[in-house]
Amino acid sequence: MTLPSLRLKANAERRLRAGHLWVYSNEVDVAATPLNGFGAGEQAILEMANGKPLGIVAMSPNNLICARLISRDTKHVLDKSLLVHRLNVALSLRDRLFDKPFYRLVYGDSDLLPGLVVDRFGDVLVVQIASATMEKHRDDVLAALLQVLKPSAVLWKNDSSARDAEGLERYVENAYGEVPEWVALEENGVKFEAPVLAGQKTGWFYDHRMNRARLQPYVQGKRVLDLFSYIGGWGIQAAAFGASEVMCVDASGFALDGVERNATLNGLAEKVACVEGDVFDALRELKAADERFDVIVADPPAFIKRKKDLKNGEAAYRRLNEQAMRLLSKDGVLVSASCSMHLPEDDLQNILLGSARHLDRNIQLLERGGQGPDHPVHLAIPETRYIKSLTVRLLPNG
Amino acid sequence: MTLPSLRLKANAERRLRAGHLWVYSNEVDVAATPLNGFGAGEQAILEMANGKPLGIVAMSPNNLICARLISRDTKHVLDKSLLVHRLNVALSLRDRLFDKPFYRLVYGDSDLLPGLVVDRFGDVLVVQIASATMEKHRDDVLAALLQVLKPSAVLWKNDSSARDAEGLERYVENAYGEVPEWVALEENGVKFEAPVLAGQKTGWFYDHRMNRARLQPYVQGKRVLDLFSYIGGWGIQAAAFGASEVMCVDASGFALDGVERNATLNGLAEKVACVEGDVFDALRELKAADERFDVIVADPPAFIKRKKDLKNGEAAYRRLNEQAMRLLSKDGVLVSASCSMHLPEDDLQNILLGSARHLDRNIQLLERGGQGPDHPVHLAIPETRYIKSLTVRLLPNG
Repeated sequence: MTLPSLRLKANAERRLRAGHLWVYSNEVDVAATPLNGFGAGEQAILEMANGKPLGIVAMSPNNLICARLISRDTKHVLDKSLLVHRLNVALSLRDRLFDKPFYRLVYGDSDLLPGLVVDRFGDVLVVQIASATMEKHRDDVLAALLQVLKPSAVLWKNDSSARDAEGLERYVENAYGEVPEWVALEENGVKFEAPVLAGQKTGWFYDHRMNRARLQPYVQGKRVLDLFSYIGGWGIQAAAFGASEVMCVDASGFALDGVERNATLNGLAEKVACVEGDVFDALRELKAADERFDVIVADPPAFIKRKKDLKNGEAAYRRLNEQAMRLLSKDGVLVSASCSMHLPEDDLQNILLGSARHLDRNIQLLERGGQGPDHPVHLAIPETRYIKSLTVRLLPNG
Repeated sequence: MTLPSLRLKANAERRLRAGHLWVYSNEVDVAATPLNGFGAGEQAILEMANGKPLGIVAMSPNNLICARLISRDTKHVLDKSLLVHRLNVALSLRDRLFDKPFYRLVYGDSDLLPGLVVDRFGDVLVVQIASATMEKHRDDVLAALLQVLKPSAVLWKNDSSARDAEGLERYVENAYGEVPEWVALEENGVKFEAPVLAGQKTGWFYDHRMNRARLQPYVQGKRVLDLFSYIGGWGIQAAAFGASEVMCVDASGFALDGVERNATLNGLAEKVACVEGDVFDALRELKAADERFDVIVADPPAFIKRKKDLKNGEAAYRRLNEQAMRLLSKDGVLVSASCSMHLPEDDLQNILLGSARHLDRNIQLLERGGQGPDHPVHLAIPETRYIKSLTVRLLPNG
């Protein structure tokens, strides 16, 4: 199999040699290798300006990121054999980390599988494809997954907005077997069922696993508020860890049905209450009713999806955290999370400090969490780190 | 009790009102309130340029940081009563966090007790005083500790270099009861004895507790190398978590006696070997002997103590991590820690990435740890965060 070449401009190889995997379209020597000469999803040999090969790339000729490095060895093109190898390497890490088969098995670039995400729910796999090359090799992806994991069912959950930039249609469809509407999983010893077909993303957010585990010492015998609860990942674990009472707030009745389902599954229905509605409205109403909580978890959807949302998004994080702090009891704990890649951890810290000062309360940062190790960070690609979770204690001033 | 005033220059109150606790000498209106008018350890009312009070400060008139905010309420001077209150607030957090009484009980500014550190080893307390005001109130500190904690023994471990800037002598002395040479503690379910009199700092480093706990999934059945082992905090926990074999390297024979003592205490002596010598020499010899390890912990003393050490210190971190990586097996894990406040986490990440690229290996960042929650971070004072621990997986390229 002879591959076409993609030639870089002079010095454009530096970032790649230092570890990065992405090629931006303005780094390509388009006189030598015009981008419109490539088909979407095609593979190519990436070359430095002097013609020396750097590895194999997957082409997305119409995207700003026009190519992603698949291998630094030009012998390793993306095919079923490479997919099987990479899946085994990814699996060996997760096998080491977890006793039970519930985790993110593949995390894109960080597992050297750009454009591919696989969440494992026991013998059900939920797959997200976000690049033209992976889409083109969909059959190989499925065959490799079947060979390595022998699942009973596989779902294509190919409905993310990232597909638009690649010119790919969005769709959700069974890839193999019968995927049930609700799929069982276990996290930190607590049972859940996730709506992999109708829910958000792959149906479950494994990324906060370790941060949720760290709720344990803070919630025993405490009253807990879970904002943007989705199907209860935080709230029901808090209840299972010994909270006396948990209130889950979410705008989606479907999500709250999931909370009830999962509370019942763990015999915790009596401890867990649901409030359907806008979170900011609920915060105002709880304040008006003079309600207080010992522990509040604020894990909102990304308020900053694009850089241009920064100012409004920061204001929203500020409003959310300050309103939550107003509901905290005297020695209360706030777990403040953000999945906005564009909000640096330091900015979230400053928002928390500013809010605490505004309320004239002392604040201590106790824990600083990120995504779990089944979402490894690629050290050259800051975009592969996105989750932040800050646990702070609010004290009266004095 | 009438306190003197310390008057700030115009606008110098901004940082303090935003949450900071320190006053630098160049922020003081020395015409109105000359610094040489204060005695070391005296307390004062901190005032804005317009005379409005901001709170009570502890004075260190000869130090660059000439005053530290003790309270934002001018009624609360530092005395036994305030110490008892602050100790109870600190204790309530640790009681919530830990089942057993082994932790940092007081962490200076973050617990609103500037200049005071207390490590608790059951009913033995090891205290570090680093400010003139705390030294002046030493009797109150002791009385408050006895009242709140009823310890059997208290040690002044007042030998840190931070005392020099305060014009305080260094000394180690029994404050109360009889402090034994070796004091028992438990961390992550593993037993230790720490040399609180003759050892480093307070005798034990509670700050890495959570990072050590996270060794668990990585070390089972693996060969582990613990560099700068001190008395075996990492290495012996690795052995207890199921490592097949552990090698501890330290330049201090005294520290390695502690490793042996602690290995025996846990019935792990057969798994744990000690190598006495310079760590860099040991790394070269292990490489020459073609030894390989599955997990390597590199937790060196601060290579960057002052800003001027930055360049040499970064080079030392680079050398250490790259030499450690050379000893890693094919799918090896490196835990790379730094306690240099002047080395940002991003720089340590870049050092790891650069080393991996230099060895032509792929690297995944799995975990990113900091100091445990018994060392809370003061959000306005970056200096209160100092520990970094990065867990990376090194893979063959391809």
